[in-house]
Amino acid sequence: MRLIVVGAGIVGSACAYAASVLGADVTLIDANRTGRATSAGAGIISPWSARIDDAAYTNLACSAARAYPALVAGLAGEGETALGYRQAGALMLADSTQQQEEINQRLLARQAEWPEMGDISLLDPGQARELFPPLRPDARAVHIGGAARVDGRLISAALRRVAGRNGATVIPGDAQLRCAHGAVEGVTVAGELLEADAVVAATGAWTDAFIEPAGLTLGVTAQRGQIVHIGLGLTDTSRWPAILPSDTGHYMLAFDDSRVVAGATRETGAGFDYRVTPSGLAEVLNQALAVAPGLADGTYLETRIGFRPMGPDIRPLLGAVPGTDGLFVATGLGASGLTMGPYAGQLAARAALGLSLPVDLGPFSPVREQ
Amino acid sequence: MRLIVVGAGIVGSACAYAASVLGADVTLIDANRTGRATSAGAGIISPWSARIDDAAYTNLACSAARAYPALVAGLAGEGETALGYRQAGALMLADSTQQQEEINQRLLARQAEWPEMGDISLLDPGQARELFPPLRPDARAVHIGGAARVDGRLISAALRRVAGRNGATVIPGDAQLRCAHGAVEGVTVAGELLEADAVVAATGAWTDAFIEPAGLTLGVTAQRGQIVHIGLGLTDTSRWPAILPSDTGHYMLAFDDSRVVAGATRETGAGFDYRVTPSGLAEVLNQALAVAPGLADGTYLETRIGFRPMGPDIRPLLGAVPGTDGLFVATGLGASGLTMGPYAGQLAARAALGLSLPVDLGPFSPVREQ
Amino acid sequence: MRLIVVGAGIVGSACAYAASVLGADVTLIDANRTGRATSAGAGIISPWSARIDDAAYTNLACSAARAYPALVAGLAGEGETALGYRQAGALMLADSTQQQEEINQRLLARQAEWPEMGDISLLDPGQARELFPPLRPDARAVHIGGAARVDGRLISAALRRVAGRNGATVIPGDAQLRCAHGAVEGVTVAGELLEADAVVAATGAWTDAFIEPAGLTLGVTAQRGQIVHIGLGLTDTSRWPAILPSDTGHYMLAFDDSRVVAGATRETGAGFDYRVTPSGLAEVLNQALAVAPGLADGTYLETRIGFRPMGPDIRPLLGAVPGTDGLFVATGLGASGLTMGPYAGQLAARAALGLSLPVDLGPFSPVREQ
Amino acid sequence: MRLIVVGAGIVGSACAYAASVLGADVTLIDANRTGRATSAGAGIISPWSARIDDAAYTNLACSAARAYPALVAGLAGEGETALGYRQAGALMLADSTQQQEEINQRLLARQAEWPEMGDISLLDPGQARELFPPLRPDARAVHIGGAARVDGRLISAALRRVAGRNGATVIPGDAQLRCAHGAVEGVTVAGELLEADAVVAATGAWTDAFIEPAGLTLGVTAQRGQIVHIGLGLTDTSRWPAILPSDTGHYMLAFDDSRVVAGATRETGAGFDYRVTPSGLAEVLNQALAVAPGLADGTYLETRIGFRPMGPDIRPLLGAVPGTDGLFVATGLGASGLTMGPYAGQLAARAALGLSLPVDLGPFSPVREQ
Repeated sequence: MRLIVVGAGIVGSACAYAASVLGADVTLIDANRTGRATSAGAGIISPWSARIDDAAYTNLACSAARAYPALVAGLAGEGETALGYRQAGALMLADSTQQQEEINQRLLARQAEWPEMGDISLLDPGQARELFPPLRPDARAVHIGGAARVDGRLISAALRRVAGRNGATVIPGDAQLRCAHGAVEGVTVAGELLEADAVVAATGAWTDAFIEPAGLTLGVTAQRGQIVHIGLGLTDTSRWPAILPSDTGHYMLAFDDSRVVAGATRETGAGFDYRVTPSGLAEVLNQALAVAPGLADGTYLETRIGFRPMGPDIRPLLGAVPGTDGLFVATGLGASGLTMGPYAGQLAARAALGLSLPVDLGPFSPVREQ
Repeated sequence: MRLIVVGAGIVGSACAYAASVLGADVTLIDANRTGRATSAGAGIISPWSARIDDAAYTNLACSAARAYPALVAGLAGEGETALGYRQAGALMLADSTQQQEEINQRLLARQAEWPEMGDISLLDPGQARELFPPLRPDARAVHIGGAARVDGRLISAALRRVAGRNGATVIPGDAQLRCAHGAVEGVTVAGELLEADAVVAATGAWTDAFIEPAGLTLGVTAQRGQIVHIGLGLTDTSRWPAILPSDTGHYMLAFDDSRVVAGATRETGAGFDYRVTPSGLAEVLNQALAVAPGLADGTYLETRIGFRPMGPDIRPLLGAVPGTDGLFVATGLGASGLTMGPYAGQLAARAALGLSLPVDLGPFSPVREQ
Repeated sequence: MRLIVVGAGIVGSACAYAASVLGADVTLIDANRTGRATSAGAGIISPWSARIDDAAYTNLACSAARAYPALVAGLAGEGETALGYRQAGALMLADSTQQQEEINQRLLARQAEWPEMGDISLLDPGQARELFPPLRPDARAVHIGGAARVDGRLISAALRRVAGRNGATVIPGDAQLRCAHGAVEGVTVAGELLEADAVVAATGAWTDAFIEPAGLTLGVTAQRGQIVHIGLGLTDTSRWPAILPSDTGHYMLAFDDSRVVAGATRETGAGFDYRVTPSGLAEVLNQALAVAPGLADGTYLETRIGFRPMGPDIRPLLGAVPGTDGLFVATGLGASGLTMGPYAGQLAARAALGLSLPVDLGPFSPVREQ
Repeated sequence: MRLIVVGAGIVGSACAYAASVLGADVTLIDANRTGRATSAGAGIISPWSARIDDAAYTNLACSAARAYPALVAGLAGEGETALGYRQAGALMLADSTQQQEEINQRLLARQAEWPEMGDISLLDPGQARELFPPLRPDARAVHIGGAARVDGRLISAALRRVAGRNGATVIPGDAQLRCAHGAVEGVTVAGELLEADAVVAATGAWTDAFIEPAGLTLGVTAQRGQIVHIGLGLTDTSRWPAILPSDTGHYMLAFDDSRVVAGATRETGAGFDYRVTPSGLAEVLNQALAVAPGLADGTYLETRIGFRPMGPDIRPLLGAVPGTDGLFVATGLGASGLTMGPYAGQLAARAALGLSLPVDLGPFSPVREQ
């Protein structure tokens, strides 16, 4: 079975990796688009704490988190250990003991089903700052021991490399979908047709343009995110937990290299406008400094920009596209791309190869009723 | 007379230029230090509006502004027209008609003596936004017709070039002062002695280190400024006036190339720490957006960092250094370097060459009582 | 008459400027494409020396050079003096006195018709190095006194600004051509139709994509150029002439700010691949150092990349597009864009406005026989 | 025992790490100097192939390589796996079968003593290109199976982090050595004295300035290296061996992230002049393209600059400084810093703590006869 995966972000790279493990004849094609969400995304893996009231979404996100450790171990077995991955925990911030308790209850209610969240503990401000020293002095927190973080660029590249060593072909190029008689024929790259039995569009915010030859529109749009990187000199940040303030949608996380990442704007309607703006930058910095004033004298390193693929609702678009045999999409992961991406890619690979699935993709149908 | 000028910021470049025009044998030496104030400074020339209650300072600053048009014309006569200079006016913002009137009165009180400030007029919010469209809708202003702006890098380079064509030697190098028997001998560069009858230290925030061989300390320190550049696409900003909010010490100005500059932090005690910080960047962006919300969707281009040379008080340090014959300093211009620099450089040149001065330098003595 | 000009490189900016001077109702629209040739181009104005044996081309290029001083003066009259323009001369290098004499004869043969080339003189190696000190010690040269250089970014922006102040509308956006019934209707930008009586496509290497709705193909392709900028510290390079080696197609020129520009690769078939490559960079550096070994210890500043629009032959494509009333193109200027651009833009404006032309555009017909 | 280590390059970081493992009270201080050799160095670990005829040097370098795998394993045990380390082998290039055989013999002669070099095999051109596809088609090679590569920035940071978690204090600052009565007292940082029983100067090319208070000069100078990074898109370079051409002193190596590093210039006398130069860049590119023409169409990413610390001869300066009790140096590793650094740091730690040493430091005495 010849499978073509278009888009080498985390979803497409994971899809090619999974398909290569399953023995498929895989080609992964990437156009190297500016603003790929994977390259800008933060990488917090802590779905248990989300305030999203959608069972299908929650199940997918938590299943994705469950699958992460085995994926990381599998990659390590292939000699790929530099993923920026670390189970450093997360702090959900609370303004009061009451709010702290509410968060605690919400997590405990899910803990039986999702034990991967690890130990849950209530931290007073002093304890919270011990784990993340720049925090404001009065921040209470709930600590989620099983939360992790990952570097989207690194893990995607590692997935691609192992896919390649498993036999997948990984090529640059701007792929155009080719359909005929209600089925995919393959894609053209630089004028040449590459035939395939199935095509997975892991094309992120560019999905609607890619599947246009299939004659339908899925309503995937680009949500711009601006995300700030702050250096902290010689400080060892490698064990710092991710920070999840309660209400703002903003967050922070740290990587090994004395770096804290603060994000992010959620700019709907900005289109593919790859720019750092004064208001976006101010928003991210103000939110970060309000929560972690200890970052004030760090070093501003850079602002990354990503275009998150947003479907018509919170759920990813995952599965076969009706009306065109052999066409599958895996996109719409929004702000959860680095959490759900590897799992979504794996599901897409299995679906495209006609294998059984551990999850019902019905709720994620690309053309579902809303 | 052999004159050595150390430091090719705006003061030193102007000093070398003036001395070359006066026929002196000039050598200008520059160590290309990171964080030179001239390269980061904003460049608003509007001293009449400052709320500084020091007659000597005000006289120097206004005299400097008075001298600018002739300097620009002189450079143009030498084929140097790209200075970023334009008499685009300035808006002093006011929160109320009462404050507007106070500003107006303050300016009018100085207008007889300093007619270069040009026409003064009161603008209602609509008129102010017509001149500077991103302004907040309710900002009243007083318009100062004679205010100008200049690009510090460009004018310094032009002054250096003309000095060179007039016969000055302009060389890179880290000059060390050499004194003996209570007089300057010259400077050493890369181990070689360059002899001189007079040395002008236009060494900015690095002045105390430079004059150490003369055995005294002037108390010049570095005040860090972070200053943000914002692009506005195809917008013609070339005629936009400078913006002087009433109380904050922050300001904005525009250059020809669709660019607005917003600044600046005034960080005392940061030393020569060449970094953009989250708090500094947030401060400048917040101040700019509060005054000019229309900049929100511009493009963040860069943040420049400069180390302003601050003397022990508001006044520059300008003139002979007692105890060491032939040693002169011209520094301590603080946040007014691009306004006063050319004039201060010219005064230093005349002083070093033993010529008459249009201004009494007594109040600016490097070792004055305070 | 409503005129829309698409593309704000030097051709489009000049077209909008010329049309605005002529009183037309002009809108200039620009998509801010990465790799615009105008932003990377070198800017040597010295067409008299080209070894191109095409009378129509030579006439156009020399006419363009003839028109430059008046254009610069006109812009200065509008307060626009920072164009990077200077009549600094050019040196055509020769390996032997014989070659030197051949160059001399070629120039003299054109001097009567094109006196703007200024004085022509033969320089021995010492004289040549006096004008351009980094030259290799044995390079003879022919000096062309009237040659000039210009900064493509600066002059384009100045043309746009004056156009705007003359009443033109200058807006960002990705314009799509709209035609109906054999005539242009205008363009759509972000889904909105802007109607026009005439549209000038000053769309550079992107022209074929832009005019596709008109149903024809002109064969304009992108030729990639990589061009290196080298800093020279405090050296005054403002009067250095351009350097035209005899055979290589490479060249050098200097700008006021102690900067030498060396270029350029001519990469056909690279497409819109915006990258600096090891081979391109090595080629440009090797050529530059062979000619001017004195640049060896300069500072590598950056490499710019431009996509030159190349038509099917050496001549620009300039004039009405048959089959679509109101559609004009002005592109295909290849490596001569900064020399011919302002003039080509002006001709396009006059053609689109139905005015008389000082040049027969027949040889430049977009669909000419070849 | 209170130990202060000055300089957090690979030597100082390894020294602090080793001392922390040994239970010492360690403080590591770093001034974050621009041009630190560790941050620019290539990272090939293959000392067996060097054409250096000095037994002490060879023994130290090969012992250092022998110690690497245990160090990497130790760091992995501390959760530090992202070091850029991989035993990817190395290719020594040969122009002829005769030269190939000579290289082979040289290696075999050392293999009994240094089995870590792994398998040695002769590769014909086809085999060599299979391992490093951009190689020129006619390059024969000798393959060294045990050669490895490492990222200097990553391993230094990892060593620092583990040192910190072991109890070491890691602080930024510009340390000044304090000596009295023939012994170290400690260092001052920002005017404050930090007392110590021993101070290790791991201060690289800045060593002579640092130990000046001890009243002697070691003759350590800065050798500038310019080193070019080339991106290869989606190509999996993670298993590519290092490339060691036979005569040029230039080399190449690859990292996991589709990146090839080509280096380097060896510029003696350039001082601390942190610049990329046209001649340096051309030299590195020309050498790389001559050996590996397949890199021609890669993407030029950046040029890094490092100041290698060079002692008076090829050997490192390692051990106690006579005349000042408690002062030790560990520097002068030249172009082998990333190979020998961790081992040299460990030896310096043991020496400073008065522990037994596995190597006689006599030949490396900082004040040895030459």
